[in-house]
Amino acid sequence: MKITENERDAVYKTIFSRRDVRGEFSPEPIPEDVLHRVLTAAHHAPSVGFMQPWDFVLVQDDHTKGKIKAGFDIANSTSAAQFDGDRAEQYSKLKLEGILEAPLGICVTCDRNRNGPVVLGRTIKAEMDLFSSVCAVQNLWLAARAENLGVGWVSIIHDSVLRQALNIPEEIEIIAYLCVGYVSYFKDKPELETLGWQPRRDVNSAIHYGSWSKTMPTNTDKEK
Amino acid sequence: MKITENERDAVYKTIFSRRDVRGEFSPEPIPEDVLHRVLTAAHHAPSVGFMQPWDFVLVQDDHTKGKIKAGFDIANSTSAAQFDGDRAEQYSKLKLEGILEAPLGICVTCDRNRNGPVVLGRTIKAEMDLFSSVCAVQNLWLAARAENLGVGWVSIIHDSVLRQALNIPEEIEIIAYLCVGYVSYFKDKPELETLGWQPRRDVNSAIHYGSWSKTMPTNTDKEK
Repeated sequence: MKITENERDAVYKTIFSRRDVRGEFSPEPIPEDVLHRVLTAAHHAPSVGFMQPWDFVLVQDDHTKGKIKAGFDIANSTSAAQFDGDRAEQYSKLKLEGILEAPLGICVTCDRNRNGPVVLGRTIKAEMDLFSSVCAVQNLWLAARAENLGVGWVSIIHDSVLRQALNIPEEIEIIAYLCVGYVSYFKDKPELETLGWQPRRDVNSAIHYGSWSKTMPTNTDKEK
Repeated sequence: MKITENERDAVYKTIFSRRDVRGEFSPEPIPEDVLHRVLTAAHHAPSVGFMQPWDFVLVQDDHTKGKIKAGFDIANSTSAAQFDGDRAEQYSKLKLEGILEAPLGICVTCDRNRNGPVVLGRTIKAEMDLFSSVCAVQNLWLAARAENLGVGWVSIIHDSVLRQALNIPEEIEIIAYLCVGYVSYFKDKPELETLGWQPRRDVNSAIHYGSWSKTMPTNTDKEK
């Protein structure tokens, strides 16, 4: 099946305009058919040995969101203490999650025992199953963007908080907690870039030819 | 920036027709501008604290590919021995990589020390940087599909083989080795599904409402 140039450009538009959303969620509910399309796209991620180790726990009620938000607040205050000086001050002003504002939370997991202990393609690199669930996260994120839905990945939270709030068994790995919803707008650039927290690397500095550290000259400004 | 319905459908077409390619590579070289677009898309993956921990080592010469193929062969024979009976016979007939046939290999890595020890968003969940590099793999894979390029992830290989063949320093983590090239065709379904190695799960069995194990009835055949 051939992808046309217009279709290709739509994929690039989606990839380049995807953002980690924390502050612009609207409470508007997500229609069931839209959510089903997004989750079906996540479910069509690549997986090692066609293992499909992921599950998606949907969070809509305020009580559960409150528990998760409380877990974030605790984890974030210990995290903030790891930064010094100007960095600490800047950190304290950042909005890093939209747990209560987003109408939907999605916890993405990985069942490492699915289909037994020996999985095709996981025999050498044990973390391949975790990576499959991360690919599902990224498919979900891009499908959501294509539906004009924002997604924010909340990583500043202990797995134990999500496990308890969502009744997730000990043997299931927690990969991501995502906040999902329509947004007032998508920022032009990642917020951490705009605020000067971290610059965008020149893509050419990330490309090595044939061997590590054989890179092209940087600052050629070829990057889109 | 709004994504239209046509653009959304192009994203879904790309997601649903993406395959793990092993056997259908053509030797046709990948034009430089196409490769640059694909790598730029990978470089625009989400990353924890805008860390951009990935690098891309491009492999084009046959000598290096030969070393990697030899590493695969060794890893694959020890892997094959883990399967029994019919499964072992079926495994031995599978083509699991296109290392020599694909015109390009790309090793995707993760520099966990980039930007210092304290990274925003990695303070609690240490593997977030590895997961960022996996998101770059999935962006790369979808961008490649949008360019009608096939990608195959070779996971049956020891990191040490890639490290030595590509001169990758010890402190850099190896995430993926990808075979990339134009293909004679894309299969309709994942090969492991078609061959009966593993069935496609019903997407509804992966969705939990509010709490683990509260799923909808399965076999509703709502899945696309």
